[in-house]
Amino acid sequence: MTQQANKQVCVYLVGTGPGDPDLLTVKAMRLIREAEVVVYDRLVSDAVLALVEPGTARVYVGKATGRHTLEQEEINELLVTLARSRRSVVRLKGGDPFVFGRGGEEAAYLARHGVRFEVVPGISAGNACGAYAGIPLTHRGIAHSVQFITGHCREDRPLELDWRQLTDPATTLVVYMGLAQIAQITGALIGAGRASATPVAVIESGTTPRHRRILTTLAEVAAEVTRQAIKPPATMIIGDVVTLALELDWFVPSALPDRPPMPKRRTSANA
Amino acid sequence: MTQQANKQVCVYLVGTGPGDPDLLTVKAMRLIREAEVVVYDRLVSDAVLALVEPGTARVYVGKATGRHTLEQEEINELLVTLARSRRSVVRLKGGDPFVFGRGGEEAAYLARHGVRFEVVPGISAGNACGAYAGIPLTHRGIAHSVQFITGHCREDRPLELDWRQLTDPATTLVVYMGLAQIAQITGALIGAGRASATPVAVIESGTTPRHRRILTTLAEVAAEVTRQAIKPPATMIIGDVVTLALELDWFVPSALPDRPPMPKRRTSANA
Repeated sequence: MTQQANKQVCVYLVGTGPGDPDLLTVKAMRLIREAEVVVYDRLVSDAVLALVEPGTARVYVGKATGRHTLEQEEINELLVTLARSRRSVVRLKGGDPFVFGRGGEEAAYLARHGVRFEVVPGISAGNACGAYAGIPLTHRGIAHSVQFITGHCREDRPLELDWRQLTDPATTLVVYMGLAQIAQITGALIGAGRASATPVAVIESGTTPRHRRILTTLAEVAAEVTRQAIKPPATMIIGDVVTLALELDWFVPSALPDRPPMPKRRTSANA
Repeated sequence: MTQQANKQVCVYLVGTGPGDPDLLTVKAMRLIREAEVVVYDRLVSDAVLALVEPGTARVYVGKATGRHTLEQEEINELLVTLARSRRSVVRLKGGDPFVFGRGGEEAAYLARHGVRFEVVPGISAGNACGAYAGIPLTHRGIAHSVQFITGHCREDRPLELDWRQLTDPATTLVVYMGLAQIAQITGALIGAGRASATPVAVIESGTTPRHRRILTTLAEVAAEVTRQAIKPPATMIIGDVVTLALELDWFVPSALPDRPPMPKRRTSANA
């Protein structure tokens, strides 16, 4: 697999992108197919998991909200344990492992335990949703910068963002996992000085057959998300570039090619 | 190629990622192989171009610095002209078409001229360089946000950034194409309040066999780039996450698998 002479143990921290296997990298696709054990969580799509060979062990490490810290430590330990008993461990993560993926923590744990690792970047949700919703994240004369933030916070703590730094109208703001905190986020942005009429898009299940896009404003988006019953995973794009979405709307979810039927997920791994 | 019943003309605006064909998406790889005409500029790597079939027409639209506006219009027109005479036009762009790629302008022009298009996101340089330089762009307790800016500016105008919005120590800053303006950028950041001791990485030719990484500080980076003769393409990552690079350094450029020899580039297209 590695094409390296030294076939030592390696853990691959692999970004799987937004869900559509067509948006996997070539390297991710090869690693998934050649893996001896696959470790994945709930942000990895069924369509991607369907690419894992039937004989490959799989370990589901989906996280429950509110219990992240302990579980992340368990995942870290699991990767080290697997690496010591197996040759090729592929740790799949939705999106990009180094953008709100906690890949850095897993890499650091592996490094401290002397386990070799590689990081395979993936298409992050912001890039995927921008492309498929017809919203350039930067655009000459409209946005010369883009910032990615997360609405997800540690346990019950408030979001730790410096909102005054998020008010530049020429910076597109992309919010990951922001649905649960949407009223807090939009309220804080408006309070800090971002215009309440700023255009906002929310993209639900971006790039998948269930892809859905709503276009609204910063003032209205929290109510609109409730009204239209938007569910996670959802990505929010805030900024004047959102106005381009009407003109650049090209993606028709139903036009996606049919996928092969999903194999039944095994209930547990033998790893 | 499109697997759609209606085989109407389509222009694919395709991100090719940082240069390593292994980091192309599966969709980009397929489109490149099946293209009837390929339009590309200087940010698309030779290794990616080597995947274009020998019989496929290719048009080079590389831009010269300082003459962008007119040339972008010419590229827009070229895409429409090609679409009207060909079936499958693949417009290759380095990185992601919607992140400093001007893909939005090309998409808007196509839309206004009634030409169908699709956007294929690619691994953006910031994501690629972070992964390969061992620098998580976000990391629990260190950076809860990441912002992408460009050092490239219109003609001879100064950079139009609001520097006071770029001083949050918990936001990682990724600078695209910043070498030419590096003293201006770092001086403005320090002047606005970003600590001069902030760790900085510069990654030259990230992910390729010529990948090179320097680690320094915001105060020192401009001089260090000169001293070490860093050349474009280069990506700069600014923020405390850069300190993780020492521990998470995994990528050995020489360990890249050998590529097949590059076919000679044809001198002009027959398109």
